Amino acid sequence: MRDLLPREARVQAELARRLLDVFELHGYELVSVPLFEYAHVLERGLGALPDDEVLRFVEPETGAVVLLRPDMTPQIARLLASRLADAPGPARLSYQGSVLRRRRERARRQRQILQAGIELVGRGGLDGDLEVLAVASATARGAGLADFAFDLGHAGIAQSLLAGVDADHAASIVEALALRDTPEVERRAQRAKIDKASLGGLLALPELHGSDEIWPRAERALGATPAASAVAELKALWNAALKAELAPRLSVDCAEVRDFAYYTGAVFHVYASGPGRAIGAGGRYDGLHERFGRARPAAGFAFRLDDLGWALERAGKPVVEPKRLLLQGAGEEYLRELRAWKLPCAAAPQGDPFRYAKAWGYTHVVEVTLSTATLVRVEDLAREPLPRDAGALAAATAALLERSPGED
Amino acid sequence: MRDLLPREARVQAELARRLLDVFELHGYELVSVPLFEYAHVLERGLGALPDDEVLRFVEPETGAVVLLRPDMTPQIARLLASRLADAPGPARLSYQGSVLRRRRERARRQRQILQAGIELVGRGGLDGDLEVLAVASATARGAGLADFAFDLGHAGIAQSLLAGVDADHAASIVEALALRDTPEVERRAQRAKIDKASLGGLLALPELHGSDEIWPRAERALGATPAASAVAELKALWNAALKAELAPRLSVDCAEVRDFAYYTGAVFHVYASGPGRAIGAGGRYDGLHERFGRARPAAGFAFRLDDLGWALERAGKPVVEPKRLLLQGAGEEYLRELRAWKLPCAAAPQGDPFRYAKAWGYTHVVEVTLSTATLVRVEDLAREPLPRDAGALAAATAALLERSPGED
Repeated sequence: MRDLLPREARVQAELARRLLDVFELHGYELVSVPLFEYAHVLERGLGALPDDEVLRFVEPETGAVVLLRPDMTPQIARLLASRLADAPGPARLSYQGSVLRRRRERARRQRQILQAGIELVGRGGLDGDLEVLAVASATARGAGLADFAFDLGHAGIAQSLLAGVDADHAASIVEALALRDTPEVERRAQRAKIDKASLGGLLALPELHGSDEIWPRAERALGATPAASAVAELKALWNAALKAELAPRLSVDCAEVRDFAYYTGAVFHVYASGPGRAIGAGGRYDGLHERFGRARPAAGFAFRLDDLGWALERAGKPVVEPKRLLLQGAGEEYLRELRAWKLPCAAAPQGDPFRYAKAWGYTHVVEVTLSTATLVRVEDLAREPLPRDAGALAAATAALLERSPGED
Repeated sequence: MRDLLPREARVQAELARRLLDVFELHGYELVSVPLFEYAHVLERGLGALPDDEVLRFVEPETGAVVLLRPDMTPQIARLLASRLADAPGPARLSYQGSVLRRRRERARRQRQILQAGIELVGRGGLDGDLEVLAVASATARGAGLADFAFDLGHAGIAQSLLAGVDADHAASIVEALALRDTPEVERRAQRAKIDKASLGGLLALPELHGSDEIWPRAERALGATPAASAVAELKALWNAALKAELAPRLSVDCAEVRDFAYYTGAVFHVYASGPGRAIGAGGRYDGLHERFGRARPAAGFAFRLDDLGWALERAGKPVVEPKRLLLQGAGEEYLRELRAWKLPCAAAPQGDPFRYAKAWGYTHVVEVTLSTATLVRVEDLAREPLPRDAGALAAATAALLERSPGED
């Protein structure tokens, strides 16, 4: 569990705003679900959650087992099956908030991750997949990223090849597949007595990662296996995504296995330079809502705000820093005038105003003496004279800060 | 624990934006602290927390006792004493997020409350109190409230009258005082063997609630008690707040006892019509930061976003609803053009578009046929013709929605 210091918190809040604005523009309405949730609700959606992957505790009064949510999708399924049960489909909902993850993180402790994402419920097939990908693309662009990659996969490929295998064996094979450890996939698959066609398909998967060139190989390796229809679905999505230019870079990965067990169809990850993992991910989970009493196709995605901020920083597009002014030698009326121009400001305390400005992220110091006023940029101490009258000073400051080269 | 449906969630998100913008304008920087916190951190700030007031659980790996925070102030004190320990004072920080309360709520279950607030740490006395009140006033106005009331009190009044009394007796007297049950205050105070002057003071408190007219009575009743200096401080703040016109309505309450034990000085509640309790509250807690290793004066406040939204609704200033367009009979290019004008929109599914629009909060339906296009207001089915070309339609729609009477 982490604290976010001023700069980090501001970046994540600003990113959340940008993302929610994109979601809203695409018709997705914000909902909010609790930080913790009955274990039976989450596990109905996510499957059994091992104790070392979630934080589980007992509600003292009711004895109910409660979890800190590792994912919001099952909660939104619960909401759609209860208070929103009468609304006609498709539902377009968005969310933002923290989830708790322990799985596949190096640190032993759970991590609080700030996410924002969407759920498209009641629109299935290629059209639904394309809508979700298009919103994910608009989200990355709306956040400020010009360069990013979509990696497409399909949960049905591995699932259909493992269709006859019991859950424990299947999980162990999926684990080896996620590591792309082909010899281990083979050993485990043979132990599970998988038929020869499916085994051949499984062993081919780790090599079926790339671009257009993989399709002949994929069709050769999987065309005669139970994965054939999933491969055809993935290829159709690939072609449509390419045609619609949904991402600056697009790759396909037939061995993709998403973290949560609920995915049934197309899945995708969003990558950008910087963080060593996906900044966003999503896919189709047509079986999830049935578990909450109402069978409906569904798909969605979420972005991790911390990694998104990291990627923007790496791309040379850090989330804009506001100008913040520290006033020295001036009274309340100066603060009032500056705030009327929407300029964040506060009065300097006793002592060195520049030390204070640096410690607290003020970008400029406004020095007011009996006869002069000056705007000093903290970064390089560049000075600009200002009128001394409070109203004129505020107007001139606003104009100067608008005009500063290389800003905004 | 509650879900927020689309309208509610949007209102709270929009209010959080408005409040954080006001805080930023006043130099307060956003920080974020975890949803749960070690019990010893929270209890160092809040005092011992009874099991029926908080949600407490054990972290499986470390055995540490963790609480879902009922308040963010102690966490921010921890942050200032650790990662921000080197920054010169005063610190101006803001926060938003959920807290969990069980205390004094009717329902047995804990309630997740979305709050936004500030902490001013390192600026004490009347100047600090006035700054905090001024930001609270700007916050209420910035949220959109024109009419609201500040109720001022001082934690030191009751505390100083109870100075010699052991903690259990003091708590029982405070409880009776909070209920303004004067006979019970007297019974309990006599049981605690309180001296005559202090007892007289305590019994006078419940009547010392009102406006300017209370000061002569307050000074008569408390001038010769240990509460005299707290009363003088409160009167000075009252006069300064009146002079600065910090709130449309101002009252004073000498019997005010705030929920959290950490308050030491001036305290205040913000009221508005609608919710039957304060929409915001705060005060001074000069002893809190010392418990985290660094003695500094501190004050702050938080607003409850749900009650703030309720008050705005009651005041006839509901948080603005965006226009949302449902497109019928038009292709993707229409959606793209409308979104370029920042108009939220989505395609209508099969079936009655008006039923769908009402269920999901769309304000307008755009009907496109082979030869015509029309903007239909869902509320009253008022119709406006539109050009049929996608680009011209989007521009005309934007212009029409701007022009709608009574709308932003």
